[in-house]
Amino acid sequence: VTEAGSLSLIPIRGLPEVQPEDDLSVLLDQALKSSADVKLCDGDVLVVTQKIVSKAENRYVNLASIEPGIPARDLAQQCRKDPRIVELVLRESREVLRVAPQSVIVRHRLGWVMANAGIDQSNLPKGDERVLLLPEDPDASAVRLRRQLQQRYGLKLAVLISDSFGRPWRLGSVGVCIGCAGLRPLQDLRGTPDLHQRSLQNTLVALADQLCAAAAIISGEAAQAVPMVLVRGLSADCFGEGHTARELQRPYEQDLFR
Amino acid sequence: VTEAGSLSLIPIRGLPEVQPEDDLSVLLDQALKSSADVKLCDGDVLVVTQKIVSKAENRYVNLASIEPGIPARDLAQQCRKDPRIVELVLRESREVLRVAPQSVIVRHRLGWVMANAGIDQSNLPKGDERVLLLPEDPDASAVRLRRQLQQRYGLKLAVLISDSFGRPWRLGSVGVCIGCAGLRPLQDLRGTPDLHQRSLQNTLVALADQLCAAAAIISGEAAQAVPMVLVRGLSADCFGEGHTARELQRPYEQDLFR
Repeated sequence: VTEAGSLSLIPIRGLPEVQPEDDLSVLLDQALKSSADVKLCDGDVLVVTQKIVSKAENRYVNLASIEPGIPARDLAQQCRKDPRIVELVLRESREVLRVAPQSVIVRHRLGWVMANAGIDQSNLPKGDERVLLLPEDPDASAVRLRRQLQQRYGLKLAVLISDSFGRPWRLGSVGVCIGCAGLRPLQDLRGTPDLHQRSLQNTLVALADQLCAAAAIISGEAAQAVPMVLVRGLSADCFGEGHTARELQRPYEQDLFR
Repeated sequence: VTEAGSLSLIPIRGLPEVQPEDDLSVLLDQALKSSADVKLCDGDVLVVTQKIVSKAENRYVNLASIEPGIPARDLAQQCRKDPRIVELVLRESREVLRVAPQSVIVRHRLGWVMANAGIDQSNLPKGDERVLLLPEDPDASAVRLRRQLQQRYGLKLAVLISDSFGRPWRLGSVGVCIGCAGLRPLQDLRGTPDLHQRSLQNTLVALADQLCAAAAIISGEAAQAVPMVLVRGLSADCFGEGHTARELQRPYEQDLFR
């Protein structure tokens, strides 16, 4: 994937806490200007956490404004969550797949299978009754931020919006991609001859998810969170126009674990 | 996670094709000696693909020696695979979870839920009827390789054995960890105060899986495969003695997708 050399994951430090209506490209520019050693380069991939995109897009919902319906109340009892949050989970979802303590596994309206429709209560001030929904359309958010950055810097870049998902069978969350611009999220190595010219099996690689997982190693989730990470060193064939993170979604009829 | 700076993913180039009984620490040493610019450093994490560990451990099975039983023959018809391979899949597994064309999703004897018990036919010469099983005990393989390397170089290192797994709901494979020595595979951020001192949700992070996903970005799967990748720049708190990759396995009773 990469040119001869290695791949670098570079944290963007010094970003302020993101407020509604903030322009992330401006915040990034300010952070870069205050840092002596990080500059954007041609071919960089900027990985941005969903959380700051949602904050900038003001995807807050005040729980006091939510009246849970009967399905949400029933489900809230099963999973022991705030019925108002469960109401929002249901509004944000197409389908409920599983219910467990504190977790409702849903197919989100955007198509992602995830816990609690990605609704986030962390990093909000105590007593604050707001929660944060996923961006309205993370692929569109990625396209917009990429356009702003490419215009500002005159560089060829890609932008990924990452989230942190739990998984069946394995403990711990990993970074995954939910928004993509300028990069092919899937690498198709089928047909690439391997060492002995036998066709490769299992060779569709989720490059965008692996990039978001890599970025999450340094972005962390706590006080020192670094919500923007640069990935530098990807080869030119990883980039491409018109792709979306939704290409990472397994078609419903191929889904063995509904 | 990382010290102030960035994280580097450094490919180890110039490894020969691995043969049974090869000592991977010797092959790595030879590759490093023939390369001017890569040296091992204290705190490096070496990510090694399962495939070369299995080759070095001679985990080949000759399909001509396999007599499929009736369950394997039945299953082979369902999934349209070679009944001898399906026989091996069953021998390597505790439980079959799902069957799809070309894929049997199993719980491997080691506990991992994966397709076809990780049995690999790629990168074998054409007409070669051998397949490659997973290492007997990848955690033990990681411990052994780490010990050899630490003795040889007098450095503090960690070793991860990676594999490439498909996933439910998402297309494309990602690197995951199946063997671990010297690193805490899970980071537990619960209790870490976040920006506003509210306790964090969903804060068990699969660090070892994210490292293997990151390494897989540059290790690729084709002719130019790079089966060893160094990850440099992790902070000291990521390391630890006595951990195993099995810590990444979700307890069976918490498994919502059997």
